[in-house]
Amino acid sequence: METKIIDARVIVTCPGRNFVTLKITTTDGVYGVGDGTLNGRELAVAAYLQEHVVPCLIGRDADRIEDTWQYLYRGAYWRRGPVTMAAIAAVDTALWDIKAKRANMPLYQLLGGKCREGVTVYTHANGHDIAQLLDSVSHHIELGYKAVRVQCAVPGVADAYGIPHGDKPYEPADASIPREEVWSTPKYLRFAPKMMEAVRAKVGFDVALLHDAHHRLTPIEAAALGKSLEEFRLFWLEDVTPAENQEAFQLVRQHTTTPLAVGEVFNSIFDCQQLISERLIDYVRASVAHAGGITHMRRIASFAELYGVKTGCHGPTDVSPICMGAALHFGLSVPNFGIQEHMPHCAETDEVFPHAYTFNDGYMQPGEQPGHGVDIDEKLAARFPYKRMYLPVARLEDGTLFNW
Amino acid sequence: METKIIDARVIVTCPGRNFVTLKITTTDGVYGVGDGTLNGRELAVAAYLQEHVVPCLIGRDADRIEDTWQYLYRGAYWRRGPVTMAAIAAVDTALWDIKAKRANMPLYQLLGGKCREGVTVYTHANGHDIAQLLDSVSHHIELGYKAVRVQCAVPGVADAYGIPHGDKPYEPADASIPREEVWSTPKYLRFAPKMMEAVRAKVGFDVALLHDAHHRLTPIEAAALGKSLEEFRLFWLEDVTPAENQEAFQLVRQHTTTPLAVGEVFNSIFDCQQLISERLIDYVRASVAHAGGITHMRRIASFAELYGVKTGCHGPTDVSPICMGAALHFGLSVPNFGIQEHMPHCAETDEVFPHAYTFNDGYMQPGEQPGHGVDIDEKLAARFPYKRMYLPVARLEDGTLFNW
Amino acid sequence: METKIIDARVIVTCPGRNFVTLKITTTDGVYGVGDGTLNGRELAVAAYLQEHVVPCLIGRDADRIEDTWQYLYRGAYWRRGPVTMAAIAAVDTALWDIKAKRANMPLYQLLGGKCREGVTVYTHANGHDIAQLLDSVSHHIELGYKAVRVQCAVPGVADAYGIPHGDKPYEPADASIPREEVWSTPKYLRFAPKMMEAVRAKVGFDVALLHDAHHRLTPIEAAALGKSLEEFRLFWLEDVTPAENQEAFQLVRQHTTTPLAVGEVFNSIFDCQQLISERLIDYVRASVAHAGGITHMRRIASFAELYGVKTGCHGPTDVSPICMGAALHFGLSVPNFGIQEHMPHCAETDEVFPHAYTFNDGYMQPGEQPGHGVDIDEKLAARFPYKRMYLPVARLEDGTLFNW
Amino acid sequence: METKIIDARVIVTCPGRNFVTLKITTTDGVYGVGDGTLNGRELAVAAYLQEHVVPCLIGRDADRIEDTWQYLYRGAYWRRGPVTMAAIAAVDTALWDIKAKRANMPLYQLLGGKCREGVTVYTHANGHDIAQLLDSVSHHIELGYKAVRVQCAVPGVADAYGIPHGDKPYEPADASIPREEVWSTPKYLRFAPKMMEAVRAKVGFDVALLHDAHHRLTPIEAAALGKSLEEFRLFWLEDVTPAENQEAFQLVRQHTTTPLAVGEVFNSIFDCQQLISERLIDYVRASVAHAGGITHMRRIASFAELYGVKTGCHGPTDVSPICMGAALHFGLSVPNFGIQEHMPHCAETDEVFPHAYTFNDGYMQPGEQPGHGVDIDEKLAARFPYKRMYLPVARLEDGTLFNW
Repeated sequence: METKIIDARVIVTCPGRNFVTLKITTTDGVYGVGDGTLNGRELAVAAYLQEHVVPCLIGRDADRIEDTWQYLYRGAYWRRGPVTMAAIAAVDTALWDIKAKRANMPLYQLLGGKCREGVTVYTHANGHDIAQLLDSVSHHIELGYKAVRVQCAVPGVADAYGIPHGDKPYEPADASIPREEVWSTPKYLRFAPKMMEAVRAKVGFDVALLHDAHHRLTPIEAAALGKSLEEFRLFWLEDVTPAENQEAFQLVRQHTTTPLAVGEVFNSIFDCQQLISERLIDYVRASVAHAGGITHMRRIASFAELYGVKTGCHGPTDVSPICMGAALHFGLSVPNFGIQEHMPHCAETDEVFPHAYTFNDGYMQPGEQPGHGVDIDEKLAARFPYKRMYLPVARLEDGTLFNW
Repeated sequence: METKIIDARVIVTCPGRNFVTLKITTTDGVYGVGDGTLNGRELAVAAYLQEHVVPCLIGRDADRIEDTWQYLYRGAYWRRGPVTMAAIAAVDTALWDIKAKRANMPLYQLLGGKCREGVTVYTHANGHDIAQLLDSVSHHIELGYKAVRVQCAVPGVADAYGIPHGDKPYEPADASIPREEVWSTPKYLRFAPKMMEAVRAKVGFDVALLHDAHHRLTPIEAAALGKSLEEFRLFWLEDVTPAENQEAFQLVRQHTTTPLAVGEVFNSIFDCQQLISERLIDYVRASVAHAGGITHMRRIASFAELYGVKTGCHGPTDVSPICMGAALHFGLSVPNFGIQEHMPHCAETDEVFPHAYTFNDGYMQPGEQPGHGVDIDEKLAARFPYKRMYLPVARLEDGTLFNW
Repeated sequence: METKIIDARVIVTCPGRNFVTLKITTTDGVYGVGDGTLNGRELAVAAYLQEHVVPCLIGRDADRIEDTWQYLYRGAYWRRGPVTMAAIAAVDTALWDIKAKRANMPLYQLLGGKCREGVTVYTHANGHDIAQLLDSVSHHIELGYKAVRVQCAVPGVADAYGIPHGDKPYEPADASIPREEVWSTPKYLRFAPKMMEAVRAKVGFDVALLHDAHHRLTPIEAAALGKSLEEFRLFWLEDVTPAENQEAFQLVRQHTTTPLAVGEVFNSIFDCQQLISERLIDYVRASVAHAGGITHMRRIASFAELYGVKTGCHGPTDVSPICMGAALHFGLSVPNFGIQEHMPHCAETDEVFPHAYTFNDGYMQPGEQPGHGVDIDEKLAARFPYKRMYLPVARLEDGTLFNW
Repeated sequence: METKIIDARVIVTCPGRNFVTLKITTTDGVYGVGDGTLNGRELAVAAYLQEHVVPCLIGRDADRIEDTWQYLYRGAYWRRGPVTMAAIAAVDTALWDIKAKRANMPLYQLLGGKCREGVTVYTHANGHDIAQLLDSVSHHIELGYKAVRVQCAVPGVADAYGIPHGDKPYEPADASIPREEVWSTPKYLRFAPKMMEAVRAKVGFDVALLHDAHHRLTPIEAAALGKSLEEFRLFWLEDVTPAENQEAFQLVRQHTTTPLAVGEVFNSIFDCQQLISERLIDYVRASVAHAGGITHMRRIASFAELYGVKTGCHGPTDVSPICMGAALHFGLSVPNFGIQEHMPHCAETDEVFPHAYTFNDGYMQPGEQPGHGVDIDEKLAARFPYKRMYLPVARLEDGTLFNW
């Protein structure tokens, strides 16, 4: 007998930061949860789901995951984009959770089984100056991480990307109206090689180092940065230039062999098709929560494999533990896995989203629970109502609105 | 003294169909209105605006339209997509309305002034069979239209695109859960040339004829259709194949000189960059309401001009009279205007949105009111609450979810 | 009621140097002025305007700026080129001045409003030797400039570009028959890195430095120069090789990440289409006065934006204060503004062209007057009759006519 | 002893239509004449020459033609464009005339000598309807022409290109303010194949037929026209789409094997470099008078030869007999000559410009006089003062300014 969806609920909660969760329940009593969080635009996804998707889900066959994916993607008529694809992702992740629970298997088994023993993750180190950064890097190496993304405040720049204000852990979505930061690319370009030189001098070459330029360079500036960092042998250099116009990476690629990663803002395979098929990048960073769920992420990974491009999924605190769990099953099972970002959630978040995944010695494991192994404690969630929180915007020194 | 935004309200109303309107008021008492309607996903745009955009608008300088555009586009971090770009469009259109009112000029004057005497529009003719279609075409020619889009039920196909159910005017968003239609491409491909032949035999070659394949063909099928229609000299053949992967049109273009139009589902210049720069299409159909407003539509048109591509903006009942008014000012002022779609709104819609634009003898005029010339009667609007209404989905005869 | 052009006058004046101004007056008594100065070919533009354009302007609707642009561009039959496009620019600038005055707004408001707080400008420093250059750079930094173009006499080369003869401010158009200079590329290529090294040693890296090679290198020489200057982190390297054949920059671009600027000699978007769409340059230097006015410059900027290319408009004394004013409104309003050249006019020029724009602390402001804020004092202008003045020509040491 | 230029005079005369002539005299008493006519912009070229070029010519060595060419091209700083290149052409043609006179040879001898027995020319036939066109074609065949360009009024179109008003010979520059014509591409596209079919039916396939679309089609319309005319085996189809953006011809070329000609509006090799190097055209139509004279035309022809592209120089009444004479010497001597346009001048023009060239049996001969064989009767010229005369402009039926 067909297993139908009988309930689909959208849960918005803010245990430290905002998350949008879709919980789907079927006629046989199984439920699954999916993450549809879109940092700073959470309620648009929630409305998309609640008002437009949920009414169409009720009564559908929970087993027809691909059909439902196509139904939501093609059936919306207006395709793609962050809101739409986050909503579809939430549905898709919940349905895969259900399917795996009904199979009584951890999700990775349905995705083809383990391809590796664990999921290598990288984490974030940062500092208000190089000395502090070096401490932060050492600290994370001591915690077992084999790969560390390094970001440092830039002398003369009020607000560099990736640096906390004060002593709290870095959380960029920190204001109910976007903070306005001021940015200077020339100062950053001069400083970045010094930063990497200091880190390599301290930790040597056995730890993988990553760095995020966060979309703030023109293509030729990106090319120059990549060139100037070659001797420090980065694992990757991330988001060097905006990627809506994918050709932009051709220029970067001409000038440097520093490996490039991009894609936390991508929502579909079409956002990276040229980047991948022309081998303009080495890692594609789309995430389960933002790029249409497990179903679509497998398409992206499968396409990338053809061109020697690996995955490197986005995974900071702006996606919920549900996305993290799904990403680990995904990472364990795709042949061309590269690395997974890991920025630990705060304690409240971890409590609201009980999860099976674990970290040990640089690797994460999704755990062996049926499904993707992450749940939501709805009662607890209800105690953390939505609070409007935005990422900053950046302006250049002359006041021009820039890329944050 | 700076003119600040002091109020921004989202108005959702359903006078015959759903519309999302943003009304922005400034410190000097001037207000402007913008359309952010996204057919079938209206409340996601409304939430995007209400919850995430409006709080950021209050207090901003109403005159800094470009800065606000960049603030909403880059500042969202997650760019593009139908929901985001419809929300930005609503803001942008309202701000241009305000700017033109403050200049005491109809909007087209600020866009460079009239480039032509009127805006040529095309309308829709359809029929359950060819005889009925021929009547419909003749009827629209008698009304003064110089250009008519022709769609006909396909023998053996239960639901062809563009054909009303029963006698009411065609309105595809007609059900609170999407109707499921069944489609057969082979039957359509055999029928389409017969349809065009019959229409040309009846009306001759002095009326411009258009046809919409509505995304339902593969590239090689699209190529074959274009070739088979060449002798009927269409003004354009629309949406022959899905365009997320823009390269798909290379194959179509190799085989036929039938002019091609695409883009009612586009939200940004990046959705059509390759289509335009490789001259794979002849008309770009993005609309003010879906592609980021006047500011972004001018970018698209200016880019298209360089490559000999013309505009042919989407304009059925699923964009509000506000979008229609803005489109007419836009169309009057861009050098590479091609044609504008015109599917008249129902009487209730026209009452809720009093407007200065007019139709006469095949042309529309935006009117000479300061601003874009379209307003919203909020009291009347309040009498038509939102009703969930969806476009259909299409399946192939074997049940595969297909492109509607 | 239509506002018609009732008068259009061409004013040629030489308050220190020659300028061609078009003054258009409308039926409602509003007038606007536009700059059509083409250094050394002023009277050809004046004749083009006086004999061929003015007769066609009288009686035209002043509001139809785009239509008039197309009328002059397409209607001339013989398109493009410096004389034609300077003449069109003069008309277009005057009409935008009128439109903004009629809207009672500074021009930048009609162009979308402020995108930034001020227009960053760069100025010129030069010296007969490095010591003098260093003084000049320091002097301009003290004046508040954040960006300085550095040019120095080259040992063994009689006349390097950008260096004054004697003690007067640099003004290359200095003779009624072109002076003939002698040039040696090898000497220059050896010297340039030493010059940049000395400047960086003196001023550090917090001031933006620019340098102009002034078309005198072959593509491979340009590539070598760019490479040899990378460590000095130029803001841009200008006009490294002639650009009529745009592909020439592919070779330069392969070899260096030094940012490239080109385009003061461009007259239309077609002169830079390949340079921009292949991202062969980083800054496009076309100016309002030489590239068809505000209308066409917006097309160029909008096109450039798509490819991450910024503006860096030509702005020495060979364009009049009218062009400078228009450029500042333009620069304040385009999202992809880069920098604006600023070479102050002499006192007589400033008197003949009263203007609202100001310089302060590295930034310029167009001012808040309705229109572009620059006028011409016709009586005063009449006291400075045209004097034939030419730019020099350059020859190689063997006498070959070369690029100046 | 060096032969210096001692005099250079600009002569503007209107014996039926306006012509700009430069007459250069040398210290040894030899003089040469060059054509710098730019239809509708004559006085801009005259001013360019008189005010800016002539002062630089006096005293120069008349023998250094290449050096003078570079001096005027590079030395102007602002390169290219119709006014500049027509002025340079006038100088260059006059200097070649002088050089050949001093060698006591007809010009073609200095260009390498005869490559063929005569210069095949095509002429213009036209009609207000097909019957009249057929008569006109027959008439020209009877006159001996082996190649005829056919143009016919288009039913339903008020003003087609190439058709006289009334009974006088066709002369499009016919009004002191441009006449505004109305154009309809769809009507033309339907009619053109019928016209060519009728002409072929009448004259068979032994006469070469040409047709000029005069820039009025989009690339895809041009492609469709070329395809629809293939069976009539044109010698060439001319100016099918505007060529500023040379890539536009790629689309035309994909769809049709009808030979293509373009270039009467070109001023330099850079205007056709991509068209030629990608073999997008078969004939390049630049003329001596508009594209920098003999010196530059040889460069264009030499480049074209490399790619199998032939010459087909512009030669209607809007260039003077001096240009015609120069073109015949050029045509006789270049290996990749294709054909030469010949639209006979009126009697007054022929009287003012006594010339050695002749027409016989489809061929023209430049004659054996030393120099290019064309002179100007200055006294007679003075009796025909300049009259402002413009080419028409075209608008579409909706009033959009279009390509004439």
